[in-house]
Amino acid sequence: MTLIVQKYGGTSVADPDRIHAVADNVAITKKRGNDVIVVVSAMGKATDNLISLADQVAKKQSGREMDMLLTTGERQTAALLTMALADRGIDAISYTGSQVGIITDTAHRKAKIIEVKGDRVRNSLAEGKVCVIAGFQGVSTDKEVTTMGRGASDLTASALAQAMGADSCEIYTDVTGVFTADPRIVPQARKLAKVHFDEMLEMAGAGSKVLAMRSVEFARNHDVPLHVRSAFTWEPGTLVSNEEPSVEDPIISGVVTDMTEAKVTVLGVPDKPGISAALFEPLAAANVNVDMIVQNTSTEGRTDISFTMPMADLDEATSIVQQVAAEIGAETVTHDNDIAKLSLVGAGMKSSPGIAAKMFRVLADEDVNIQMISTSTIRVSIIIPAGDMERAARALHTAFDLDSGADYSAPLPTRK
Amino acid sequence: MTLIVQKYGGTSVADPDRIHAVADNVAITKKRGNDVIVVVSAMGKATDNLISLADQVAKKQSGREMDMLLTTGERQTAALLTMALADRGIDAISYTGSQVGIITDTAHRKAKIIEVKGDRVRNSLAEGKVCVIAGFQGVSTDKEVTTMGRGASDLTASALAQAMGADSCEIYTDVTGVFTADPRIVPQARKLAKVHFDEMLEMAGAGSKVLAMRSVEFARNHDVPLHVRSAFTWEPGTLVSNEEPSVEDPIISGVVTDMTEAKVTVLGVPDKPGISAALFEPLAAANVNVDMIVQNTSTEGRTDISFTMPMADLDEATSIVQQVAAEIGAETVTHDNDIAKLSLVGAGMKSSPGIAAKMFRVLADEDVNIQMISTSTIRVSIIIPAGDMERAARALHTAFDLDSGADYSAPLPTRK
Repeated sequence: MTLIVQKYGGTSVADPDRIHAVADNVAITKKRGNDVIVVVSAMGKATDNLISLADQVAKKQSGREMDMLLTTGERQTAALLTMALADRGIDAISYTGSQVGIITDTAHRKAKIIEVKGDRVRNSLAEGKVCVIAGFQGVSTDKEVTTMGRGASDLTASALAQAMGADSCEIYTDVTGVFTADPRIVPQARKLAKVHFDEMLEMAGAGSKVLAMRSVEFARNHDVPLHVRSAFTWEPGTLVSNEEPSVEDPIISGVVTDMTEAKVTVLGVPDKPGISAALFEPLAAANVNVDMIVQNTSTEGRTDISFTMPMADLDEATSIVQQVAAEIGAETVTHDNDIAKLSLVGAGMKSSPGIAAKMFRVLADEDVNIQMISTSTIRVSIIIPAGDMERAARALHTAFDLDSGADYSAPLPTRK
Repeated sequence: MTLIVQKYGGTSVADPDRIHAVADNVAITKKRGNDVIVVVSAMGKATDNLISLADQVAKKQSGREMDMLLTTGERQTAALLTMALADRGIDAISYTGSQVGIITDTAHRKAKIIEVKGDRVRNSLAEGKVCVIAGFQGVSTDKEVTTMGRGASDLTASALAQAMGADSCEIYTDVTGVFTADPRIVPQARKLAKVHFDEMLEMAGAGSKVLAMRSVEFARNHDVPLHVRSAFTWEPGTLVSNEEPSVEDPIISGVVTDMTEAKVTVLGVPDKPGISAALFEPLAAANVNVDMIVQNTSTEGRTDISFTMPMADLDEATSIVQQVAAEIGAETVTHDNDIAKLSLVGAGMKSSPGIAAKMFRVLADEDVNIQMISTSTIRVSIIIPAGDMERAARALHTAFDLDSGADYSAPLPTRK
């Protein structure tokens, strides 16, 4: 018997019509002779609405109580989908994260999975039942309800697929897969048939919203291939796995764009040990999520340090940095929220030198001024003015042959 | 230390403003030096909305899945109120029915409480915390989430008050207490300072919606006095207890009116053993909630049987009864949904003969035709035409001295 894990995100189960559509797909999968575990998110904006309610009743909220509150959204979807399945003659049963035995540590709102027991799921599957599981949640080692952070329903799905030895893990969402670029920005963007875990991780880090970074990390570490696909068109999507790219594969898999960050620059920083720590420790303590950091070689004992962070954190970051700058004797602090981050990601970079150089040449030809550069083995990220972002992304997409119709699609796991 | 249980119904916690008001009252109660357990219902129409969603995704719903779905409403309120308390500097913690150890049988949607363990509540109280508990729910002996029927949050409160040895149990609702009649129908209706459990039971059975019958039954059987009061005006309400009425108390406590029932009459029923069973067994099997049953002494071997039931069940009841009537050789079946039930309730009836006679005289003088009569030790109920109901209720209210301002209010338990 083939065991398939299917995860449906919030937009996929946003209303009764969507739940009917999802129930149809689960029923088909089951009737084809598969064992099925379904993981669901909260319906549409349910979680946002709960957070808004919490904001209206209390200025600050304890993690424990937020977890008690937010876990109800996924439980509602799980019960509703289970009823819709029963109506289709499918024997199904819903479980909370706690009932499944998803044991986490005690860090509310960002708990880490310690163990997936899964006894009740195993028994129910043996009885021929479809198990519908509330995503995003578990129970801590001290018996409290926990959640694992936004987007963690993907993590629930990967963890269950691994613990139950599933044959495939399908992540249903509102896009048809992973694209070479955001089609709203680069019209000629194409869906990728396959992506390596490492590429997906870099894409997530670069701002792609298709899969949450933690879920990809878990799937990679436990080698759980994820099939990202649409719950609206049901067409084959993108397989995210550890399959190494072949020589025929393009060097670059995608251009990732991100308009959600802002930049702070500290000018004239005395170049001596401990300066970076003095700057970034208070930011970390204030939970400012610093992304790119660039520091240049100093001239005349002084250097400039720039970093980016989510735009929402800009005011707090600026006020912290201004205080620190005064203490360490830096000259001045500037900030800019009119920026875009643009990244090239491709596993092929490892064996293809000169990608960054070509990227800079393309942008120079487009008259795009690069403000910051940061690289990893398979990624080059730059910060450019926001107004240049579309032009730059399209030019790079073309220059790196992502427009072409070259057929390099890998065979997808067969639907059984 | 005084232990107070407070229960807040759906309208009392319907929105963030209401939750703030409730949090203020809980905080005051705690700051006065009491231990406090709070039981909450789902916010406003939350439960109705979930039921509507369930209706939209499935034609029939299993009890287990409905319980998984519906228990989320109370959990949300509990978490939100706990946050609002923390914001007021009150150390509070929310618990689900399952976490509290409210152990029930396995009858989903109408589970009965077997035991209240309450260990976590006891520990939290000992740590000085306010415990905020999701009402209406428990966990069954086979580890499934259960609910105990609509209005069962009152039951949760009574059961906790009993298990924890609370000094008082306050039921906060959207009315200021138990009235001598529905003020919308009888403008001169007055709030009662006290009501005996038996009277409250009869009132609930007669159609009063202030407290659910099961909750009153539990409170009576375990002698947990309930203080019914308003979460909007916060004024002292009605004490429901086993205190016997004194001679100064009026004989009648209230006139209860109910417009939600319909009547079916089977005419010319052969008067032989087994006929009633043949009629009412299939109704029970179809879950038709039969209320009053009246059968007259037979004449010439035939009798008439009338009964009332909720108006929503009328079509089903009529179709069942028509079939049975044909089988048992009854002459004809009629039905009427233009009726009202009117009841006089009063513990004093036991020692005061002639109440029914006086009631009938008052109605005769008002030219109201009585269709059915049914009595218990402390209640007389009649069925009359719906159009006569207001006139009859007002006349009875006046005739039995309920209009008078006679001060017979009992001292309420002191707020500490």
